[in-house]
Amino acid sequence: MTLAIGVDIGGTKIAAGLVSDTGTIVQSVSEPTPDDATKIPAIVADLVERLAGDERPVGVGIGAAGFVGEDRATVRFAPNIDWREEPLAAHVRALVDLPIVVENDANAAAWGEFRFGAGEDTDDLLLITIGTGIGGGIVHHGQLFRGGFGVAAEIGHMRVVPDGILCGCGQRGCYEQYGSGSALVRDARERVSNGDPGAASIAALADGDLSRITGPAVTKLAQDGDPLAVELLTELGRWIGEGAAVLAAILDPSVIAIGGGVAAAGDLLLEPVVAAFETHLPARAHRPEAALRLAALGNEAGIIGAADLARVEPA
Amino acid sequence: MTLAIGVDIGGTKIAAGLVSDTGTIVQSVSEPTPDDATKIPAIVADLVERLAGDERPVGVGIGAAGFVGEDRATVRFAPNIDWREEPLAAHVRALVDLPIVVENDANAAAWGEFRFGAGEDTDDLLLITIGTGIGGGIVHHGQLFRGGFGVAAEIGHMRVVPDGILCGCGQRGCYEQYGSGSALVRDARERVSNGDPGAASIAALADGDLSRITGPAVTKLAQDGDPLAVELLTELGRWIGEGAAVLAAILDPSVIAIGGGVAAAGDLLLEPVVAAFETHLPARAHRPEAALRLAALGNEAGIIGAADLARVEPA
Amino acid sequence: MTLAIGVDIGGTKIAAGLVSDTGTIVQSVSEPTPDDATKIPAIVADLVERLAGDERPVGVGIGAAGFVGEDRATVRFAPNIDWREEPLAAHVRALVDLPIVVENDANAAAWGEFRFGAGEDTDDLLLITIGTGIGGGIVHHGQLFRGGFGVAAEIGHMRVVPDGILCGCGQRGCYEQYGSGSALVRDARERVSNGDPGAASIAALADGDLSRITGPAVTKLAQDGDPLAVELLTELGRWIGEGAAVLAAILDPSVIAIGGGVAAAGDLLLEPVVAAFETHLPARAHRPEAALRLAALGNEAGIIGAADLARVEPA
Amino acid sequence: MTLAIGVDIGGTKIAAGLVSDTGTIVQSVSEPTPDDATKIPAIVADLVERLAGDERPVGVGIGAAGFVGEDRATVRFAPNIDWREEPLAAHVRALVDLPIVVENDANAAAWGEFRFGAGEDTDDLLLITIGTGIGGGIVHHGQLFRGGFGVAAEIGHMRVVPDGILCGCGQRGCYEQYGSGSALVRDARERVSNGDPGAASIAALADGDLSRITGPAVTKLAQDGDPLAVELLTELGRWIGEGAAVLAAILDPSVIAIGGGVAAAGDLLLEPVVAAFETHLPARAHRPEAALRLAALGNEAGIIGAADLARVEPA
Repeated sequence: MTLAIGVDIGGTKIAAGLVSDTGTIVQSVSEPTPDDATKIPAIVADLVERLAGDERPVGVGIGAAGFVGEDRATVRFAPNIDWREEPLAAHVRALVDLPIVVENDANAAAWGEFRFGAGEDTDDLLLITIGTGIGGGIVHHGQLFRGGFGVAAEIGHMRVVPDGILCGCGQRGCYEQYGSGSALVRDARERVSNGDPGAASIAALADGDLSRITGPAVTKLAQDGDPLAVELLTELGRWIGEGAAVLAAILDPSVIAIGGGVAAAGDLLLEPVVAAFETHLPARAHRPEAALRLAALGNEAGIIGAADLARVEPA
Repeated sequence: MTLAIGVDIGGTKIAAGLVSDTGTIVQSVSEPTPDDATKIPAIVADLVERLAGDERPVGVGIGAAGFVGEDRATVRFAPNIDWREEPLAAHVRALVDLPIVVENDANAAAWGEFRFGAGEDTDDLLLITIGTGIGGGIVHHGQLFRGGFGVAAEIGHMRVVPDGILCGCGQRGCYEQYGSGSALVRDARERVSNGDPGAASIAALADGDLSRITGPAVTKLAQDGDPLAVELLTELGRWIGEGAAVLAAILDPSVIAIGGGVAAAGDLLLEPVVAAFETHLPARAHRPEAALRLAALGNEAGIIGAADLARVEPA
Repeated sequence: MTLAIGVDIGGTKIAAGLVSDTGTIVQSVSEPTPDDATKIPAIVADLVERLAGDERPVGVGIGAAGFVGEDRATVRFAPNIDWREEPLAAHVRALVDLPIVVENDANAAAWGEFRFGAGEDTDDLLLITIGTGIGGGIVHHGQLFRGGFGVAAEIGHMRVVPDGILCGCGQRGCYEQYGSGSALVRDARERVSNGDPGAASIAALADGDLSRITGPAVTKLAQDGDPLAVELLTELGRWIGEGAAVLAAILDPSVIAIGGGVAAAGDLLLEPVVAAFETHLPARAHRPEAALRLAALGNEAGIIGAADLARVEPA
Repeated sequence: MTLAIGVDIGGTKIAAGLVSDTGTIVQSVSEPTPDDATKIPAIVADLVERLAGDERPVGVGIGAAGFVGEDRATVRFAPNIDWREEPLAAHVRALVDLPIVVENDANAAAWGEFRFGAGEDTDDLLLITIGTGIGGGIVHHGQLFRGGFGVAAEIGHMRVVPDGILCGCGQRGCYEQYGSGSALVRDARERVSNGDPGAASIAALADGDLSRITGPAVTKLAQDGDPLAVELLTELGRWIGEGAAVLAAILDPSVIAIGGGVAAAGDLLLEPVVAAFETHLPARAHRPEAALRLAALGNEAGIIGAADLARVEPA
C-alpha cells in the first residue's frame, strides 16, 4: 500500500490526512488557519510531518480555495486568504522533503469523488459543491479539466440572473448568490425580517438574533417538517438544478454529484434539484441525461482527492 | 502530402472538400440537402467519390448539426434533418470504401480553427459560432471536448435570461435567442414593426416586406454607418460577450474565437463582444484573460476540421 | 327602476344586456362579431333595439377591448378588431336615439365590480382580469381611473421579465405572457412536447392534438388532483400574485379582485396568488394590505359596468 | 396674496418655506434633522414661527419621506426616521395654532410641479424623483392620487428585475436599485474596484477612497466628457426610461417629469431616459405618448407643493 498526504486549506481550518491508495484516510490532523498567510506553509509542513511519521508517503497534494496556476504550484489569488501569486508549493517544499502539488480545492474534491466516491463508475463527472459559495470540479474522460490557465470550473460565478444579486466577485446574478448555503441563510433571515407569518419556527430559532439562523438549523427544521424550511430548501434545490441543466448543456457530464455542507440535507435537497434539472435540460427528449446524485465523501473529498493527485499526477 | 475529405451537412447544403494535411481545401463540391433524409448518405458518397478521384484520401470526416453519439458514428438527433439515432457512418461506409468519422459540426469547426486557424497558437480554444443559432466547440489541452455522451458544448442553449424568450429546444431564455443572427434579424424587424423613427433605413430595406431584412443586410447598413443598425449589432455583441464571460468562468479557455456567418461583421461585432466580456468576467482583476478574436477559416472551418479529424483521430 | 343597456364587444362575440340600477341583467342578447368591422355599429344598434323594446333605457354603455379615447366615444386602436380612431359612439348614435358612452372593456368590468360586485365595500379597487391576455381596471376614490389619454390600466403590458417572452404588443416580458390563460395553455403544451413524464394526464387530454389542451381542461385536471396541472396553476398564480404586489406598490388599492375566465379555477388559483402577493409586497410589515379576492360578476361584469356608466356618467 | 408654509422633513435636514399663492418661496429656513425623532415636532413648530412672523399664513403643509396615512395627519412608517404610526399633525398642532396637513414628500413635490412647475400645462402628471432612492407622485385629473391607504406611488419598489439586487424594503430587483443616484454611485465604485481600465478618471476622483465617488462627481465627469461617466449616466437613464414605460402603461400620464438631485445631470440623463421610454412603451404606434421632461422646481418642489396643499386642500 502506498500512502499520500492530502491537505485542504480553508478559510478557517487547515485539515490534512494520510490517505491510502484506495482512498481511505488512515490518520487526520488539523490546525486553525492563521490570520497571517505567511505562516501557512509552516503549518502545512508541521501537519505533513505529524502525519508522515515513520511512513514513507509518496507525496503531498494541497487543495486550496482560489485560483491555482497551470503550474500546479502557485496560488494566483484566494478570496479569503491574503495570497497573490503565492508560490505555495515552493514554500512548503522548502520545509518538507516530499513532492508537492497544489490544486484548486473543488477540483481536488471532484477528483476524490471520481476516484473513490460518487463518480467511481464514470469517466465524466461534474461535482457541484454547495457550501458558503458554490464550487465546481470537472473530470472529462478520466482527466481533471483545468482549463487554459488552471482556473476552470468556477461555476459559482456563472451568471444565472442578469442584473441580479451583487456578488463578491464584482459581478451580479452569480449562481452562488442563489444556490449556496449563504443564499439559504439569507433567504431564511429575510423571511423573518419581513414578518412572514409562516416564519414562526425560523423566528423562534433566531429568538431575536438573526445570526442564529444557519444552514444546518434550517435543514434540521425542514427535516422536522417545517413548511417554510422545506419551501426554502426546495427553492434552493430549484436554483441548483436549473444551473445544473445549463452546465449539462455545456459540459455533458455522465454524472453530476452534489456535494458540500448543504448536501447533508439529502433528499430534501436532491429531489427539487432533480426535478428542476429535468424540467430545464434543453432538448431533453433527444439526449442521454446525466445521473444526479449526492456526493459520497463528504468534507473529506478534498483531502482524499488531493492526496490521490499527488500519487497519480505527481509534480 | 496526405489528403482527407471533410463533409459539412447543413440544413440547406451538403458541402465537401478535399483537404491537405496543412488545412488547405484543394477541391470542393456541394449539393443541396434533400428533403428526404434517407437520401443523404448517397449524396455524401457521391461527393466523396467526385473529390477522391485518383487521389487516395486517408478518410472522411463528416460534420453534422445535431447530437452525435460518443461512437462518432451515429447522429442521435438533428434539429433540422429528420434523423433519430441515425447510423450515418455505417450508411456512408456501405457506399464508400474509406474510414468514416462523424462529428458535431461546431466541434469540427472548432477543431479546424484549433489546427489551422484562430486557435493555432493555443491548446485551449472555445469557438462560438454565430449563425442562425449559436454553436460551440471546445478544445482542451489539445483534445476535442466531447463530454460523457458526445453532446457537450451545446452553448447555444445556455440559459441567459430566466423566463426569457421561448426557444425551439423547449426551454426559455437560451443564449441563441439573444446572441444569434436570428436574434439580430428579429430585433431589426421589431423596430420596423413598432414604428421606431430611427428605423427608416432598415424599413427602406424592407420596403414593405419584412423578410428582406436579413443579417447581412443589417450588417451592411451598419458598415455604412446607419445608427440603428450599429446599435443592433452592438446589442448583439453585448449579449455574445456577456455569454462568453460566463463560458470563460466555466471553461477557462486561452482563446475564444467568434465564427459563423455573423462574424463577417468584423470589428463592428467584435468590439462590443470584447467590451461586454471584459466588464462581465468574474474576478477579472485576479485571473488571466482569454484572448477574444474573430475565427479565421470562415464557413470552411467545418470541412477543414472534419477532414483533419479523419486524419488524426480515425475511426 | 331606471334601466340602461350595456354592450360588450369582444373578438368573437358582441353581448348586450338590459341592466337594472341594482346591477341585475334583466334580459340579454348576443351576436357573433363580424369579420368586417364596419358592420359592428349596425349589429350593436340591432341588439340595443331588441333589448329596449318598450322600455325607456336611459342610455347605452359600450365596452370594447382596445384603447378608448378620453372623449369616451372613439376607439383609438383595438388589437383584435380592425379599428383605428373609430368614432364608435357617433356611428351607433346615428342608428339609435339614446346617449352612448364607450369605455375600455376591462375598465367597464372594474366599474361593474366596484358598483355591484367584489368592490362594493371599497372606493379603491383594482380589477385584474385573467383571460387570453391580462386586462386591468382601476377605481380610485370612487372614480374610474382613465389616465391622461384614456388608456390607463394596461397592466397586461407591465414588463415583469426584462428581455422576456415576446409579446404581441412589440415588447418583451409582459405580464400577460406569464400570468394569462394563454400562458397556462402554452406551458401545459410545452410540458407535453418536452416529454415530461409528469404530463401523462395532460398528454392524454391532447391525445396527439395539442390544441385540445385548453385552460378549462387544465383547470379541470387540477381540480381532479393531477399534480402537474396543480403545479401549472400554482405557477400561474405565482406570476399573477407577484405582479399584483408591484401594482399594489404603485396603486395602493384597498381591494384587488381577480376576474376573467381563468378565475373560474377559484381557490386553486387564488391561494398561490395570495401567497406570492404577500411574499412580494414591498415593506409589507409597515403598510396596510389590500384584500385579494375573486371577482363576483363573472363574464357579465363588463355589460353591467358599461350599463351603469351610461347611467351615472352619461355622455 | 395668501401665504402658506411648506415643510420638508428629510433624513438629514428639515427645510421650510413661506410660500406665496403663485408658488414663490418668499422666505426659507432650515435645521438639521435630530437623531431623536421626538424632537421633530418642536423643530417644525420653531421653523413655522420664524417664518410666520407677522404674516398670517393660512396653514402648514408638511412633506415627509414615508408612508402617510389617508388621514393626512399620521406617518405610518418612515424608512430613515424612527416613526411608527406617528400622529405628526397633532404633535405640531399642539405647538402651532395653524391648520396642519401631512403628505408624503414625493406626493407633495408632484403637487408642486403640477401647480407651478413641469406639470403646469397638464392635469395628469407623474413625477419620478431620482435621489438616493426613487420616489413618485401621481396627479390624476387634477387630483393627487393617494390610493386606498394613502401609500400609493411607491414606484421605487416596483420590481424591475425578478430575483434582482436586494433592496432595503425586503424585496429584490426594485426600480430604485437600478435607477437611483445610489445605483449610479454603486456602479461607478464597482468599476473602479473591478479594475476597469476605462475607470481611470473615476478612480482619480476616488484617489484611494471610494467614498469620494458621488453622484454629483460622476455627473461632473460626464459633463466634461469622460466616456465611462457618460456610459454610467446613459445606463442609469436607460433603467429610468424603461421603468417609466411600464408606469405609462399602468398610469397613462400626459406628462412625466424627472426630478430629484440626479436630474441635475440634465440632458445627459434625459436623453437616454427618452430613448429607452420610446423603445419600451407597449403598443407605442397606437397610443398617444406622454411628454417626458425635467422637473422645474428642483429641491424646493416639496416645500412649494406642501404649502399649496395646505391652501387648496386644508385639513
